[in-house]
Amino acid sequence: MPRSMILWLFIFLQWASAEEGMYPMSELHRIDFAAVGFQLSEKDIFNPDSISLTDAIVNINGCTGSFVSPQGLMLTNHHCAFGAIQRVSSPDHDYLQDGFAALSMTDEIPAKGYTVRITESYRDVSDPILSAMAVENDFALRTKAKERKIKELIAEVEKDNPGKRAEVAEMFNGKSYMLFIYKFLRDVRLVYAPPFGIGNFGGEEDNWVWPRHTGDFAFMRAYVAPDGSSADYAADNVPYVPRKYLRVAPQGVDDQELIFLLGYPGRTFRHSTSHYLEYESTVRMPFIVDWYGFQIKLMEDQSRKDRDVALKLASPIKGLSNTYKNYRGKLKGIKRIDLVTKKQNEEKQLQAFIDADPQRKAVHGSTLQEISRLYRERTEAASYEMLMDQFLRSSRPLGIAYTLYQSSIESQKPDLERESAFMERNVSRTKQRLRLGLANFYQPADQLIFAAFLNKWQELPPSQHPAAIRKLLADKNPQKAIDKFLNGAYTKTRVLDSDWVMAYWGCQPDELVKLKDPFIDIARTLYPDMQALREIRRRRSGELDKLYAQLMDVKQLFEGSDFIPDANGTQRLTFGRIRGYSPADAVTYHPITTVGGIVEKNTGQDPFDAPAQLIDLHREKDFGRFMHEKLHDVPVAILYDADTTGGNSGSAVMNARGELVGLNFDRAFEATINDYAWSQDYSRSIGVDIRYILWVLQKYSGAVNLLQEMGVE
Amino acid sequence: MPRSMILWLFIFLQWASAEEGMYPMSELHRIDFAAVGFQLSEKDIFNPDSISLTDAIVNINGCTGSFVSPQGLMLTNHHCAFGAIQRVSSPDHDYLQDGFAALSMTDEIPAKGYTVRITESYRDVSDPILSAMAVENDFALRTKAKERKIKELIAEVEKDNPGKRAEVAEMFNGKSYMLFIYKFLRDVRLVYAPPFGIGNFGGEEDNWVWPRHTGDFAFMRAYVAPDGSSADYAADNVPYVPRKYLRVAPQGVDDQELIFLLGYPGRTFRHSTSHYLEYESTVRMPFIVDWYGFQIKLMEDQSRKDRDVALKLASPIKGLSNTYKNYRGKLKGIKRIDLVTKKQNEEKQLQAFIDADPQRKAVHGSTLQEISRLYRERTEAASYEMLMDQFLRSSRPLGIAYTLYQSSIESQKPDLERESAFMERNVSRTKQRLRLGLANFYQPADQLIFAAFLNKWQELPPSQHPAAIRKLLADKNPQKAIDKFLNGAYTKTRVLDSDWVMAYWGCQPDELVKLKDPFIDIARTLYPDMQALREIRRRRSGELDKLYAQLMDVKQLFEGSDFIPDANGTQRLTFGRIRGYSPADAVTYHPITTVGGIVEKNTGQDPFDAPAQLIDLHREKDFGRFMHEKLHDVPVAILYDADTTGGNSGSAVMNARGELVGLNFDRAFEATINDYAWSQDYSRSIGVDIRYILWVLQKYSGAVNLLQEMGVE
Repeated sequence: MPRSMILWLFIFLQWASAEEGMYPMSELHRIDFAAVGFQLSEKDIFNPDSISLTDAIVNINGCTGSFVSPQGLMLTNHHCAFGAIQRVSSPDHDYLQDGFAALSMTDEIPAKGYTVRITESYRDVSDPILSAMAVENDFALRTKAKERKIKELIAEVEKDNPGKRAEVAEMFNGKSYMLFIYKFLRDVRLVYAPPFGIGNFGGEEDNWVWPRHTGDFAFMRAYVAPDGSSADYAADNVPYVPRKYLRVAPQGVDDQELIFLLGYPGRTFRHSTSHYLEYESTVRMPFIVDWYGFQIKLMEDQSRKDRDVALKLASPIKGLSNTYKNYRGKLKGIKRIDLVTKKQNEEKQLQAFIDADPQRKAVHGSTLQEISRLYRERTEAASYEMLMDQFLRSSRPLGIAYTLYQSSIESQKPDLERESAFMERNVSRTKQRLRLGLANFYQPADQLIFAAFLNKWQELPPSQHPAAIRKLLADKNPQKAIDKFLNGAYTKTRVLDSDWVMAYWGCQPDELVKLKDPFIDIARTLYPDMQALREIRRRRSGELDKLYAQLMDVKQLFEGSDFIPDANGTQRLTFGRIRGYSPADAVTYHPITTVGGIVEKNTGQDPFDAPAQLIDLHREKDFGRFMHEKLHDVPVAILYDADTTGGNSGSAVMNARGELVGLNFDRAFEATINDYAWSQDYSRSIGVDIRYILWVLQKYSGAVNLLQEMGVE
Repeated sequence: MPRSMILWLFIFLQWASAEEGMYPMSELHRIDFAAVGFQLSEKDIFNPDSISLTDAIVNINGCTGSFVSPQGLMLTNHHCAFGAIQRVSSPDHDYLQDGFAALSMTDEIPAKGYTVRITESYRDVSDPILSAMAVENDFALRTKAKERKIKELIAEVEKDNPGKRAEVAEMFNGKSYMLFIYKFLRDVRLVYAPPFGIGNFGGEEDNWVWPRHTGDFAFMRAYVAPDGSSADYAADNVPYVPRKYLRVAPQGVDDQELIFLLGYPGRTFRHSTSHYLEYESTVRMPFIVDWYGFQIKLMEDQSRKDRDVALKLASPIKGLSNTYKNYRGKLKGIKRIDLVTKKQNEEKQLQAFIDADPQRKAVHGSTLQEISRLYRERTEAASYEMLMDQFLRSSRPLGIAYTLYQSSIESQKPDLERESAFMERNVSRTKQRLRLGLANFYQPADQLIFAAFLNKWQELPPSQHPAAIRKLLADKNPQKAIDKFLNGAYTKTRVLDSDWVMAYWGCQPDELVKLKDPFIDIARTLYPDMQALREIRRRRSGELDKLYAQLMDVKQLFEGSDFIPDANGTQRLTFGRIRGYSPADAVTYHPITTVGGIVEKNTGQDPFDAPAQLIDLHREKDFGRFMHEKLHDVPVAILYDADTTGGNSGSAVMNARGELVGLNFDRAFEATINDYAWSQDYSRSIGVDIRYILWVLQKYSGAVNLLQEMGVE
């Protein structure tokens, strides 16, 4: 809701507006680049036949990053590099707290478990997949046919392209599929991380909040074998030479300027129905908020004990907290704009359109009702299914035991029939993740959380208790029985020894059973229940695939145009302008924050504990060339109305010329509901201003080597 | 800190700025009214020889109000009328919840305990008071001499002006004194109160907060005897005809326009030293925040039981909460701008100025050190004194018992030697307050708070325990002993029967002792300790009077000008402009909120529970003539940079022509430290917009009679 002053500011400054849209590369033709204000053509951005900007954009473990030098230097978010920084930190070398800066390449630290993907090409594979599905009548079998066909397509492509990875993405459920080929780099190293008081300034309190003052950036580097091929870490690997890297624009960007992002947005649900939204907002998200909130509090309490525990729990707390606050934002937003009712009204209109034509009615008349029925079914089963979904996450040793047990089952199958994680192409990373997961295992927290989780099952009737824990819950004092069992189990189990686990990896199931390990016993007894749930969901998903495909067809008729698919982790372009907004009556947020705002927020206590040296630099007004002229200060964060979601973390924010002016890392609280509905009024994303990154490198860290490498003198 | 956009807005819109200042009527000559933009002269505002605006301004029980009709109709805050509304409310006639509107004068309800004062004249009485003090050498005796002289001056004036009240106000400690003569009206009635969801919308959550959406207004009426003389309530009393009443300006006011306020600001401490501020911010306010916070939580828990309890506890909770949040704002603000260090630096400069001249040094050289010594002394005694200060407030029956015991002591003395509350001129209101206090007495809460209070004394060494409770605290299980004693005491005591109390009022102390009432016993044993503390404070205050007088003298030399005195409950003028501000980096607050903001905040749950009818009126855009053109909505609250403090509650906000455009009721959170330091950056006060008042009267309540009476058709 524009306010008096703002109103006439807008009249002064009204330019071409941003619009909803995370454009796949295949849909860039929809944009009139020149009219919007780009000084680049479509081919400058994406060109399958030549070099273009997208060659500089990478996917790092689900985040986005970009090459910013000819030597494989990548800029991404501090929170994306968090796991790597945490794993190499200890109370003695506390890179998480103090930051890290490699003075030369030899100082760079391997970021175990990190990989880099670069999109090389894509093609439509809807036909073979839909044909494979059409053969089956049973919905569960259709889903299985789809899974199988996707694996076959991937295997085929990867066979023809050694060292590359293929992935199939569902663009519209049950309707269209794209196969992407990625360059895949497996030696990634940590180059630079700011101290915690910069990279995580504001912490969870400021997460999803504008105005923001977080220096959420880090540098990593991709390495390849000396012959240029993709390789695991080796001392004599060499920096990867990207086809393209982004030039940074040290002059930054200003209010109302055009910006665009290239990145890998995760998931949006804008084409979903009111039934989905109702399920999410009244059933699933409240459950998660409650359960994650409990775990966060428990782990925070444990973290107060000592720094070693705090380091171990930092990453899990950060992960849960992010979802926790995101969901709270979504729940608030959905209620505030009454999104469920809005969607219902849209569906009423669509239904009226369907009913108005006998032929349409014959085909699509019951589509919405059928979808509604499936969500009702899901809601009825929710208490059981949501707990089952949390089971393996509720205890690290159980998760490991279950993975080990699965390995013994899956290893007996031909490769294409295995669960994805156990296929040849993935199993080494599955093992690595398992090893890395143990690095931040902290038993007291794990046991308390697992005990609470098992007790939670008491809220369900005994008939719904999984076989694995039925006996414990049937005890006349279940809480006591659980505690007694767990005290023994954590002492007795061997699964926390990763060498031991690797020794049994892929053995016969019987061998595992003989070991009588308490966690493996739970895993084994849980396995049939998990498989049964899997089948239920295959059936439901098969049915929804069909219904959603029908829905898209008729929506397209209704609206007279086709749509851009929801985000699904594939590369997208989005554009907008640097732009503030009004979060509430009589309040305006401006789109550029400053170091002065850090000083304002700084309490000297985490999460507002900026380094003293940074405060000094500000007091001395040592801004160098990075000062914003009108603000008389160094900009810290920028706000823009481009269309982003999770996965866009680390996305390069570029100006009209394709130069890097910022680094996307978050959205405003009101924009957490972006995933369901975009709006010019409140959909705002947040980036670190390039001037802050360069200023911190130069003035705070003296990282001249990095500035030089990026061509900033 | 002005932001980019705001910066050039200011360049456009820069007008004469507001300044710090709560001008006594005697200091109005300092203002260049025409240059500031007033369309009124000094004499239009205050004229001792004729009729002026100040004749329309009243003091209602410590708040401010203004006459808005020729028939004694007064506009003040809902929170100022709160006690009156609460006392006449019951679950059956819940005026607090549902609001109240008298359709005619006969429906108006007596507001027991409410009185109205109108300033008639003032004169300087520094000479007689300072002369009386000069006779004594002992500091305690000096304070007593001051108290005595003030009583004499008042008695003299009131004898010559029957029906009037006189008060002496200290303008500068130990330096200058003013005697004010007030017209004094004792029959006040409730005319109109909006429902709780309007008058208290936002409740404690929004208290001290901008942007604000509270319709904090109510109407009362002053009555006099048929012959025009001041009288207690009587059915045949007639409306008071004020010498002057304010005209309302239904067109309201807009951003950047000049406004001014006339009112009775309570207390500010801008001339106090760093030592005072340090004592307040590190000792007294943290103690109060802690103790009030405990009481609020306890009473809120009790209030959940039923509406009757909630009604009884509403007023005490509101009172404590207001101080609680105010102090928290002050503590945050003092820390944020590091006010103690600032004051210390000012004092260092002053000390250097003093030391630079041998003669000045001889007179004032140790003034600041001496003040520092007295605050050190106060800090050392703080644990004891702060608890003693809370003693009589910690239990209603104890407060009554103590007042009764005092009455028995004081009644034996000549009138001029009595404590103020027991002098002839005050005793009837003291009795009335005692009766009214019992109306919202709720024993379970009282007993729990009193028990907690008595237990608090255990934090002090036994040598500091007052005689009254020494035995309880010396028990080997004091908590148990306290509980046992209180269980008996609340059952046995008679002091909760106000008729019984009145029967013993002013009897001989021996008679009271014989009654063996447990609360009277505590009061009696506490009395000597209270008196001893009183003497200590008389001495300290006498010494501070001398030192502060010296300090003001030398500060005047240092700054080369004299000052405006701190607020002290006497009538003041302050002016400023409708103006937003920046509470934080990248945030702008605009100075006018709208009904749309109520809709935004409304959750349907207290404190954001606006009446459905109000929401409907907004949906239907039924704004009538009260719409703000640019905002396309009815304004609710306005923000301005005038200089206010507590006591300005209910102050008329007037435009340059002296027409009523708003009703002051609060300050922004950042402005809670106004009391210590004013700043153009953050000192903002909040008023209800007159358009909202009129719109609610017309559209929501249909109170056409009031609109007509105010001349709004």
